[in-house]
Amino acid sequence: MCARTARCAVRWCRRQFISISNSRGCISNFFSGDRPALRRTAGNERRITMRYDDETRRDILSRLSGFRLKHTLGCEKAARMLAQQYGEDEDKCAFAMLLHDITKTFSQEEQLNLCEKYGIIPNDVEKTEWKMLHGKTAAAIAADVYGAPPDVVHAISYHTTGCADMTLLDKIVYMADYIEENRSFDGVKTARKLAARNLDKALLYGLNSSLRDLIHRGKQIHVDTVLARNWLLEHM
Amino acid sequence: MCARTARCAVRWCRRQFISISNSRGCISNFFSGDRPALRRTAGNERRITMRYDDETRRDILSRLSGFRLKHTLGCEKAARMLAQQYGEDEDKCAFAMLLHDITKTFSQEEQLNLCEKYGIIPNDVEKTEWKMLHGKTAAAIAADVYGAPPDVVHAISYHTTGCADMTLLDKIVYMADYIEENRSFDGVKTARKLAARNLDKALLYGLNSSLRDLIHRGKQIHVDTVLARNWLLEHM
Repeated sequence: MCARTARCAVRWCRRQFISISNSRGCISNFFSGDRPALRRTAGNERRITMRYDDETRRDILSRLSGFRLKHTLGCEKAARMLAQQYGEDEDKCAFAMLLHDITKTFSQEEQLNLCEKYGIIPNDVEKTEWKMLHGKTAAAIAADVYGAPPDVVHAISYHTTGCADMTLLDKIVYMADYIEENRSFDGVKTARKLAARNLDKALLYGLNSSLRDLIHRGKQIHVDTVLARNWLLEHM
Repeated sequence: MCARTARCAVRWCRRQFISISNSRGCISNFFSGDRPALRRTAGNERRITMRYDDETRRDILSRLSGFRLKHTLGCEKAARMLAQQYGEDEDKCAFAMLLHDITKTFSQEEQLNLCEKYGIIPNDVEKTEWKMLHGKTAAAIAADVYGAPPDVVHAISYHTTGCADMTLLDKIVYMADYIEENRSFDGVKTARKLAARNLDKALLYGLNSSLRDLIHRGKQIHVDTVLARNWLLEHM
């Protein structure tokens, strides 16, 4: 896909999501236009069955471009590697990674429209740091538009913050996002080494680094990140 | 007071509190023994009126010894200084400081007995880091035994963690505990300088340093500390 086509796809994707977000209870707008129609159960416009396959993968990737596309492919690769190593379902991990940043480039207004549509109530931190909402809005899109199963939806929802009682799938999605091959921040090599040896130690390293970074930058801290770390310290 | 007498006083104090903690709905045991009886309203054994005066001060200080006594006196002095500078009630600040660590040396069993007596439900962090409970148990003693007013009780309760919507009294108590003259940790001089210029900046410095320290030591983080910092960033 050339850069221009990719940009058009992103604009199209954004338009469609916003169309969704303004049409309570109806997602048919999402499937209008030039995108391939996705599978639905016969006679039920609301119920969509979907799984991770080549057609879905192509459809999702066609909505991404530039660094976001590169990062998503890097995440998919890292998640498959971690899934193999720690014994999680590879396709579920890959499916979560393909969708985890699907709303990342959306504006504040677009995020809030999706929150309204899907009944997501932003907490105090998310009202200020509204970009954090992309995890929850992407999870809603994953469930509603792509028919992702609940465990994949949960992993997408908490891929930025972490949470208490993280499943293996949650941990893999969080860490794949953190260590994928396009990341180059200080400490990413240490995180990769830890992830290859001990997923919980890598997760603690990631949570600690994120907290230190937020403190350093004077940014608010999401309570879920603290709950994730407290829970991990209690159970590792 | 000689060291031996001081140790006896601490043991006495601990015995009396535990006596309280095992006698639901009755605090008369606290006033038995050789301590001076404290003022009560006539005909009402449960209602105790009390204020910050020399007799109360002597009574509280007689229950402390060693570093805890020295630290409490340092806190009282720092709190009076901050109260003068920022326009808060000096006696309230001093009263809160005298009582803030009154249960600090208690054992886990003693803390939990007081929690049971006063209906304090430890959260997940406090169950593990049970020493954090001393703020809440000291606040309960301050209200029940010393008749401290609600704003003083609140400041004592959150003197270790901070909380959202901190009052000026809360901030002064938190900072006086942090910067009092006997403290010697890295960064205390910076905290003192900040406190002399801008209480909110000093508070943010204290919260950030506490969070960094907990991360460094692999300790759980109390959610109230994060809520305090988020609220402060939003309002300063």
